[in-house]
Amino acid sequence: MVYITRIEHFNAAHKLYNPGWTREKNEEVFGKCANEHWHGHNFDLYVTIKGEPDAETGFVYDVKKLSILIREQVIDKLDHKNLNLDVPFMKDKLCSIENLVIGIWNELEPALPAGIQLHSLKLYETPRIFVEYFG
Amino acid sequence: MVYITRIEHFNAAHKLYNPGWTREKNEEVFGKCANEHWHGHNFDLYVTIKGEPDAETGFVYDVKKLSILIREQVIDKLDHKNLNLDVPFMKDKLCSIENLVIGIWNELEPALPAGIQLHSLKLYETPRIFVEYFG
Amino acid sequence: MVYITRIEHFNAAHKLYNPGWTREKNEEVFGKCANEHWHGHNFDLYVTIKGEPDAETGFVYDVKKLSILIREQVIDKLDHKNLNLDVPFMKDKLCSIENLVIGIWNELEPALPAGIQLHSLKLYETPRIFVEYFG
Amino acid sequence: MVYITRIEHFNAAHKLYNPGWTREKNEEVFGKCANEHWHGHNFDLYVTIKGEPDAETGFVYDVKKLSILIREQVIDKLDHKNLNLDVPFMKDKLCSIENLVIGIWNELEPALPAGIQLHSLKLYETPRIFVEYFG
Amino acid sequence: MVYITRIEHFNAAHKLYNPGWTREKNEEVFGKCANEHWHGHNFDLYVTIKGEPDAETGFVYDVKKLSILIREQVIDKLDHKNLNLDVPFMKDKLCSIENLVIGIWNELEPALPAGIQLHSLKLYETPRIFVEYFG
Amino acid sequence: MVYITRIEHFNAAHKLYNPGWTREKNEEVFGKCANEHWHGHNFDLYVTIKGEPDAETGFVYDVKKLSILIREQVIDKLDHKNLNLDVPFMKDKLCSIENLVIGIWNELEPALPAGIQLHSLKLYETPRIFVEYFG
Repeated sequence: MVYITRIEHFNAAHKLYNPGWTREKNEEVFGKCANEHWHGHNFDLYVTIKGEPDAETGFVYDVKKLSILIREQVIDKLDHKNLNLDVPFMKDKLCSIENLVIGIWNELEPALPAGIQLHSLKLYETPRIFVEYFG
Repeated sequence: MVYITRIEHFNAAHKLYNPGWTREKNEEVFGKCANEHWHGHNFDLYVTIKGEPDAETGFVYDVKKLSILIREQVIDKLDHKNLNLDVPFMKDKLCSIENLVIGIWNELEPALPAGIQLHSLKLYETPRIFVEYFG
Repeated sequence: MVYITRIEHFNAAHKLYNPGWTREKNEEVFGKCANEHWHGHNFDLYVTIKGEPDAETGFVYDVKKLSILIREQVIDKLDHKNLNLDVPFMKDKLCSIENLVIGIWNELEPALPAGIQLHSLKLYETPRIFVEYFG
Repeated sequence: MVYITRIEHFNAAHKLYNPGWTREKNEEVFGKCANEHWHGHNFDLYVTIKGEPDAETGFVYDVKKLSILIREQVIDKLDHKNLNLDVPFMKDKLCSIENLVIGIWNELEPALPAGIQLHSLKLYETPRIFVEYFG
Repeated sequence: MVYITRIEHFNAAHKLYNPGWTREKNEEVFGKCANEHWHGHNFDLYVTIKGEPDAETGFVYDVKKLSILIREQVIDKLDHKNLNLDVPFMKDKLCSIENLVIGIWNELEPALPAGIQLHSLKLYETPRIFVEYFG
Repeated sequence: MVYITRIEHFNAAHKLYNPGWTREKNEEVFGKCANEHWHGHNFDLYVTIKGEPDAETGFVYDVKKLSILIREQVIDKLDHKNLNLDVPFMKDKLCSIENLVIGIWNELEPALPAGIQLHSLKLYETPRIFVEYFG
């Protein structure tokens, strides 16, 4: 079993805001991240799949095809977007990276070809904060 | 003459949008960057000052003091903000990194102590795009 | 289950030296790292916790609070210190990064709030050497 | 149990080419990577071993010795080489990073001293593509 | 005057070899880099242009257009190529990064639109070796 | 004229301390950096030379020879050392990176072969602080 990872990039705006709370409570809990005018990040997304290398190609899965798939299923929906307003799969969810990485998994995993297993996602929000999700 | 650089970080939302143009023209010129719902970035700011090292401290200027000054004069005004809406010194300017780095210079340069020369600013918008400004 | 990681930084001096050995044996085993006058490093510490995102905040645990906790429990005890002389929890231990990462775990793990699980620590000593510890 | 990782570097030429296929099929499947005149990469190899720190040295295994072993067993056979033509352990294999990381494991693992367990290899082909192998 | 930089990536094979010398002399001077079977690298190319930000766009020059221009004029000619065999502008030149960066300048500079000044190129061959050229 | 840069690494202990001052004044001015038990860093040194590429080699100067020269003249004197105690050329100087980069220039510049011009040194003390010196 070999694990192969492709890294893709997107940038987006978001805010951390619970609409069931007052503005004061949002600012108390989320601090600067609750700014009603939004803030944003450059995100790096690591997509790891696993499998046996194919005898004829040497590939677990063609990483160029994986890159195209990630762009179609994930990056095009997130890049230069507002994560709270523009992304259907984040609607009515708190826009934390924890929830974002789960949402990305749910977009990407069903789109992978039969026999290709998604092992993990890793999502950097800043150079010092990232999440990982294994499904 | 020795040049010393301190790197600070902020993240923010913005859009590229000329209010004197139609929405169509903005989208034609600025593409995804014109998204009316904003997008955002992690920015890295390199501040370079120059001078002779002091005989008693070995410092051109205490880099901890420089860090505090950059935070007070620049980072606190930009971090977790909307660059178009929340930043007085970017008001009525196109919110490109070219204009942003000039705006940062104008905030920071007058606040430096007498005898400390600001040599350059370098501002990363993404890991693959940055600007430099020498005043 | 989502894993979230916060990276913190410290720098410190240390030497690799077994007081039960002669100086010659120390130099034979530890080479330049046994220099009696010390050497030092910039260390990067990755702290990974795991859990279910909270329904109201979207957080496994507030990463700003995690950062404060790491600074109080670990960074303040190590930053700009001599790991052999200034750090109570390294007293009478060989000052390898293997022992250091175990010591950091023992400081940090009991201080985490109930319900927050420490998953792993990763500690870079140089850009080409790091250790990981899972408790 | 502590995991310690040493990162080593090599650069090499290769092509992706299945000699049982026509040139057209190779170009269809492997694209630019099938260029008959080769292309190349800077590779970063992460070698992770695991064990209990020794009571007298604090080491799982002396990372300087590990570095020498990796150079002798792996880097000297790959650095500034053509992976398809110059590397006996890649002969008659498709020269993908999946097959390369397995080949490196088979060179390195038997050469480790008794009691030292090889946990994983991680091999970067570009800054955005890497594989991992656990044996 | 603001300087804006776009970073692009390519990978390629090459060798250092002076055809006017014996093989022995080539190996003596160029060492492993003279391997007749080639070796290769991941290259990062920094392209810096300079100018006044435009009043209507805030841009020195649209960095997306710059990226397309660099790809057309440079990256498409170099990526996944053999620099000695496949690249017309390197024909009959020693394939050092010094000569490569000069060759890239000569391809790119005449293709820039009127009024856009190419300030510098920076070319990384490995993470520890790079060249810069100012025309 | 082409500029070529080689990056080398060393790590060392030091403290910032003016022996003409009281301990209190040292702590007031230098803060944690005045810790009498030392602290330390991983340093990255960028050495940039400039010249015309040689017609026969394509080199400004063989970067492998440059690397050996830097190691002999600089790295061997600094790596795994105490900058205040073990380094003759820092004796009786305040051990700031400003003074260190000047000291390194004075060791390296006279040792370069005739015709090779040292253009600049860049010295990283932490990932967020560096100095540059042009002689």
